[in-house]
Amino acid sequence: MKLKFGVIGAGRIGKVHIATLAQSVPEAEVVAVADVNRTVAEELAAKYNIPFVSENHSDIINHKDVEAVAICSPTDTHAAYIVEAARAGKHIFCEKPVDLSLEVIRQSIDEVEKAGVKLMVGFNRRFDPNFKKVRDMVAEGRIGDPHILKITSRDPSPPPAQYVAVSGGMFLDMTIHDFDMARYIVGSEVTEVYVKSAVLVDPAIGAAGDVDTAIITLTFANGAIGVIDNSRKAVYGYDQRLEIFGSKGMVSADNNFPDNHRYFAADGIHGALPLNFFMDRYLEAYSNELKAFCDAVVNNRPVPVGGPDGLMSVAIGLAAKKSVSESRPVRIGEILS
Amino acid sequence: MKLKFGVIGAGRIGKVHIATLAQSVPEAEVVAVADVNRTVAEELAAKYNIPFVSENHSDIINHKDVEAVAICSPTDTHAAYIVEAARAGKHIFCEKPVDLSLEVIRQSIDEVEKAGVKLMVGFNRRFDPNFKKVRDMVAEGRIGDPHILKITSRDPSPPPAQYVAVSGGMFLDMTIHDFDMARYIVGSEVTEVYVKSAVLVDPAIGAAGDVDTAIITLTFANGAIGVIDNSRKAVYGYDQRLEIFGSKGMVSADNNFPDNHRYFAADGIHGALPLNFFMDRYLEAYSNELKAFCDAVVNNRPVPVGGPDGLMSVAIGLAAKKSVSESRPVRIGEILS
Amino acid sequence: MKLKFGVIGAGRIGKVHIATLAQSVPEAEVVAVADVNRTVAEELAAKYNIPFVSENHSDIINHKDVEAVAICSPTDTHAAYIVEAARAGKHIFCEKPVDLSLEVIRQSIDEVEKAGVKLMVGFNRRFDPNFKKVRDMVAEGRIGDPHILKITSRDPSPPPAQYVAVSGGMFLDMTIHDFDMARYIVGSEVTEVYVKSAVLVDPAIGAAGDVDTAIITLTFANGAIGVIDNSRKAVYGYDQRLEIFGSKGMVSADNNFPDNHRYFAADGIHGALPLNFFMDRYLEAYSNELKAFCDAVVNNRPVPVGGPDGLMSVAIGLAAKKSVSESRPVRIGEILS
Amino acid sequence: MKLKFGVIGAGRIGKVHIATLAQSVPEAEVVAVADVNRTVAEELAAKYNIPFVSENHSDIINHKDVEAVAICSPTDTHAAYIVEAARAGKHIFCEKPVDLSLEVIRQSIDEVEKAGVKLMVGFNRRFDPNFKKVRDMVAEGRIGDPHILKITSRDPSPPPAQYVAVSGGMFLDMTIHDFDMARYIVGSEVTEVYVKSAVLVDPAIGAAGDVDTAIITLTFANGAIGVIDNSRKAVYGYDQRLEIFGSKGMVSADNNFPDNHRYFAADGIHGALPLNFFMDRYLEAYSNELKAFCDAVVNNRPVPVGGPDGLMSVAIGLAAKKSVSESRPVRIGEILS
Repeated sequence: MKLKFGVIGAGRIGKVHIATLAQSVPEAEVVAVADVNRTVAEELAAKYNIPFVSENHSDIINHKDVEAVAICSPTDTHAAYIVEAARAGKHIFCEKPVDLSLEVIRQSIDEVEKAGVKLMVGFNRRFDPNFKKVRDMVAEGRIGDPHILKITSRDPSPPPAQYVAVSGGMFLDMTIHDFDMARYIVGSEVTEVYVKSAVLVDPAIGAAGDVDTAIITLTFANGAIGVIDNSRKAVYGYDQRLEIFGSKGMVSADNNFPDNHRYFAADGIHGALPLNFFMDRYLEAYSNELKAFCDAVVNNRPVPVGGPDGLMSVAIGLAAKKSVSESRPVRIGEILS
Repeated sequence: MKLKFGVIGAGRIGKVHIATLAQSVPEAEVVAVADVNRTVAEELAAKYNIPFVSENHSDIINHKDVEAVAICSPTDTHAAYIVEAARAGKHIFCEKPVDLSLEVIRQSIDEVEKAGVKLMVGFNRRFDPNFKKVRDMVAEGRIGDPHILKITSRDPSPPPAQYVAVSGGMFLDMTIHDFDMARYIVGSEVTEVYVKSAVLVDPAIGAAGDVDTAIITLTFANGAIGVIDNSRKAVYGYDQRLEIFGSKGMVSADNNFPDNHRYFAADGIHGALPLNFFMDRYLEAYSNELKAFCDAVVNNRPVPVGGPDGLMSVAIGLAAKKSVSESRPVRIGEILS
Repeated sequence: MKLKFGVIGAGRIGKVHIATLAQSVPEAEVVAVADVNRTVAEELAAKYNIPFVSENHSDIINHKDVEAVAICSPTDTHAAYIVEAARAGKHIFCEKPVDLSLEVIRQSIDEVEKAGVKLMVGFNRRFDPNFKKVRDMVAEGRIGDPHILKITSRDPSPPPAQYVAVSGGMFLDMTIHDFDMARYIVGSEVTEVYVKSAVLVDPAIGAAGDVDTAIITLTFANGAIGVIDNSRKAVYGYDQRLEIFGSKGMVSADNNFPDNHRYFAADGIHGALPLNFFMDRYLEAYSNELKAFCDAVVNNRPVPVGGPDGLMSVAIGLAAKKSVSESRPVRIGEILS
Repeated sequence: MKLKFGVIGAGRIGKVHIATLAQSVPEAEVVAVADVNRTVAEELAAKYNIPFVSENHSDIINHKDVEAVAICSPTDTHAAYIVEAARAGKHIFCEKPVDLSLEVIRQSIDEVEKAGVKLMVGFNRRFDPNFKKVRDMVAEGRIGDPHILKITSRDPSPPPAQYVAVSGGMFLDMTIHDFDMARYIVGSEVTEVYVKSAVLVDPAIGAAGDVDTAIITLTFANGAIGVIDNSRKAVYGYDQRLEIFGSKGMVSADNNFPDNHRYFAADGIHGALPLNFFMDRYLEAYSNELKAFCDAVVNNRPVPVGGPDGLMSVAIGLAAKKSVSESRPVRIGEILS
């Protein structure tokens, strides 16, 4: 028995999820797809043998065969679609962020709980084999008590400046993944954020009111401290590494590479650049993520990344923005209350 | 348009190919499967929606929808099935070795040529991204003239001693991959072989007339020399590495790992073992291999690994056996003539 | 012609410098040594053929053969001895920190300038081949404009809690090296500091009014930002790494190891721990440092690490302490003015 | 009490040993030096405060203060000087090879034994920390029974063709180190050699009757097998690696590097080349070697590398030459008898 998916939104991430569901998740089947651009949806339907196509998300949510919806539409539609799907009794996989407003996220979560459906938020990096291995070792006590977390997260190239205006800015469209990763790896809530940021990559990003480079200090409820460093542009590609240090040792995870060749020439030793962006680096993570969602739904287990995780990562992002504008450490409690 | 496959043999490697064709090769479709154990074939058919099942290979070869056969049955059936499929006008993907007799292989190749169908031999390692990168760099002249090739190839555990009696022995069931790799990487024919071997892993293998440990020196037509070292048992897992050294530099390829974590503890720095065996290590290679076969058939291009490649690797294997029994270097010409 | 040294203080670091001068710096000769514990000084004199011994630092400074003094006595004597040596016309190599008071450091620098002698401060890590390579590459423009600096600096074990009371605390006895390294690598002054710290290693350190774990955010005059993470106790040994990221790339430096063996066993791949503490890790740096001082004196060149470098690192340390006590970012200008 | 050395021969390796003894071996003192070119000897004497100089080796051997001689003169003088020093009752450190004739080596050893002095042969690589770590782990049983040894040994550039005529050729001037290393690492005697060689680097070397590229298969008395690969020219520098594989695991040792920086640029990840030649790579090994000799003499312990070790490495080299000329595996017994 396969879990029957309806996918809403056939943009970049929607395409990734449809391909993943079709090719790498034997437990799933895509039975319906919608996009405001019907042609795009039809092309995907043809490619992956999806029997139903619409330009309207409600057609997907209300389609009789659809058991679970994957919400891959723009951020400002997520919360409304979650509520609509919950009321229709469908399980929900929603891309991050759930919304940029904590109040709206809370309402969505309430509706999901009322409906008794599953809601999983798409923090795919938790399902990367390297990061998962680190988390597992922390959970097993291999590093003892966590003391210092370090996350490096740098994109290969910046988005257009106009994007950051609608995305909520770097902390809500990019660092939000790192905030979730920090909570996941340390296994404790973030209680305070301090950000030192700069516009070093593209002045247009600064003109649009955002930053492109940052060092973010985190304080955790369990006493650990951590740091995230971000850049919108690493010329050598997608840089995704972390390490966690504790009383009994340290575990680190490195980038992934397209191959492991090493070339010894007269001018030095050379190797390949990291896999260049998230579709390559997190290919396996996307597949593991959707398998985990299917498992949670089919076997009625808790989802590994729920609504509250979606809420917390946005709260930390909002605290980060406040820290930048006020040049001081900001407690998450200031944001949540 | 998908290339329609019939798969003959649903043992270990047959299962790998069926799963790969079904999940990772969008250009292909499995329409028929046969195994002498019909139950096994039926289970696979159910799992992968394969419409036709038989216990008889001829039913596959002669099935009207089948455009290409994948021969995954025992070695002693390969040549006969190749001939039968060629006469039926079907394209052929055949597992290695084609046969243990050079004469029989030659006859198979003749029939394939007469029929004008494609024959590709399953040397999957050529399609491993690491080894392919090395080959590409050699072909681009990055190392200048090749001087020294080194291949390390060690299995995680030995086969049962009774297996080596029917397999043709280590050089024909295991090292044959390394012989093909040597020819591929250097881009030149092997002209001479010298083997120093030993029975160090399992005396029963020696009792069965085979060896389990070997250092094999190769001479190439282009003047390069090379060495393969083999063991039937590496306690740390599947060890598959190589390097090629030339007048302008060296390129190497390393093992692959399930994750790249590093653990720094009071007693040292620790990392994961290599991916444990060929199904994990060469997962991507199997998929690339079948895509290459589909591409050759659909676009009427030469197959990347043809019948003559299958012939040469067996010839080198036979020379290796002769070198062991006569304790001297053996020219391939002695075997081929 | 060798530069004739008088060494004041024969404790841990004094012993290192005497051994280095005697064995690894052919340009130098130790002609006098003093320690308040005369026996210790005599033992060293015997071991290294040093002709003159005293328990009084003034005997060294005023010894007619002494051309340069190496001040290795406790921190609270540094400034006074600098002034005394400067007035005696002797060149000065002084261990860090010069003093814990900026006013006292400034007075020392004034006296040195008045006397026209050389003063070099012992920030040995600048002379580590790995860190120097990184700095050279930054200076050559290989990473373009610096954006993000990351320094990891962790000791293998904490000092006794009573030590931190007199040392000035972690930021002035340990992180001071990292502050100097930050200025050196980025090639720009630190303008602001924010510290998030914790007591996670030893409660007695907290009771003594200090911290043992910290994440320190730095802002540089050239627009770059940076982070230092410190721990007083890494169970896997002395952890000294850094990386600097810029518009055209990144350069990193790793730890050093006693050997580079790798052990592949059934339970994983294992390697050696880093060289365990500063005497091993920075052995070559100590020698390079003293050679650089000799070169500056003998060839009348500027010293590579002068009095102002000694001043700035203490200023940053004081800002760090203020940041901890006031839980806010502190501008260096607040401290310097 | 320091061991008083007289050094015979102040060429390349003589200079290395004098500098090492003077600067890095506190247990030693050089009191006399001879070279046929007296000027060279005098320059060294001036630089290192050596009180006695001569152009005649006998002056060194018979100098009353000399307790041990270091023979660093050309190979064809080694045996005669050993005999002369032994008869004078002096301990002997002799560079490799002792001689190119097994008969002459045997006579030297006989004289040394008769005189009751120590003779150590300069196989410095045994004292490299990486290789020593591997040997120690093998001796501790960490890899179980040794099965396969692999040594890669490549020089950065070939010697002049005229050199190979007098040196005895590649196997006796270069590979001899690897033969000794093979015996050391495996802890068992070599019983058979097979060589596949080529002239790929410099035709003039071939014209002089030697080879410049080789793959050498070794058989050991304990059942292990091994392979050495050699080249006279690696454009990326001095390549000195090895690994040993056994029933319980594998240990490997890698090259050493001038620094460990890694540079991440838009065109790949880059690192430093290996330390370029033996004086850099084996700097620490030279010092450890002479300390071991001093220790053996002063404390009357067996030398770690004795006359029989010098004999065996030459025997293997002669077997290798015979294998090349007769294109067959050669037993060491054929050479020794």
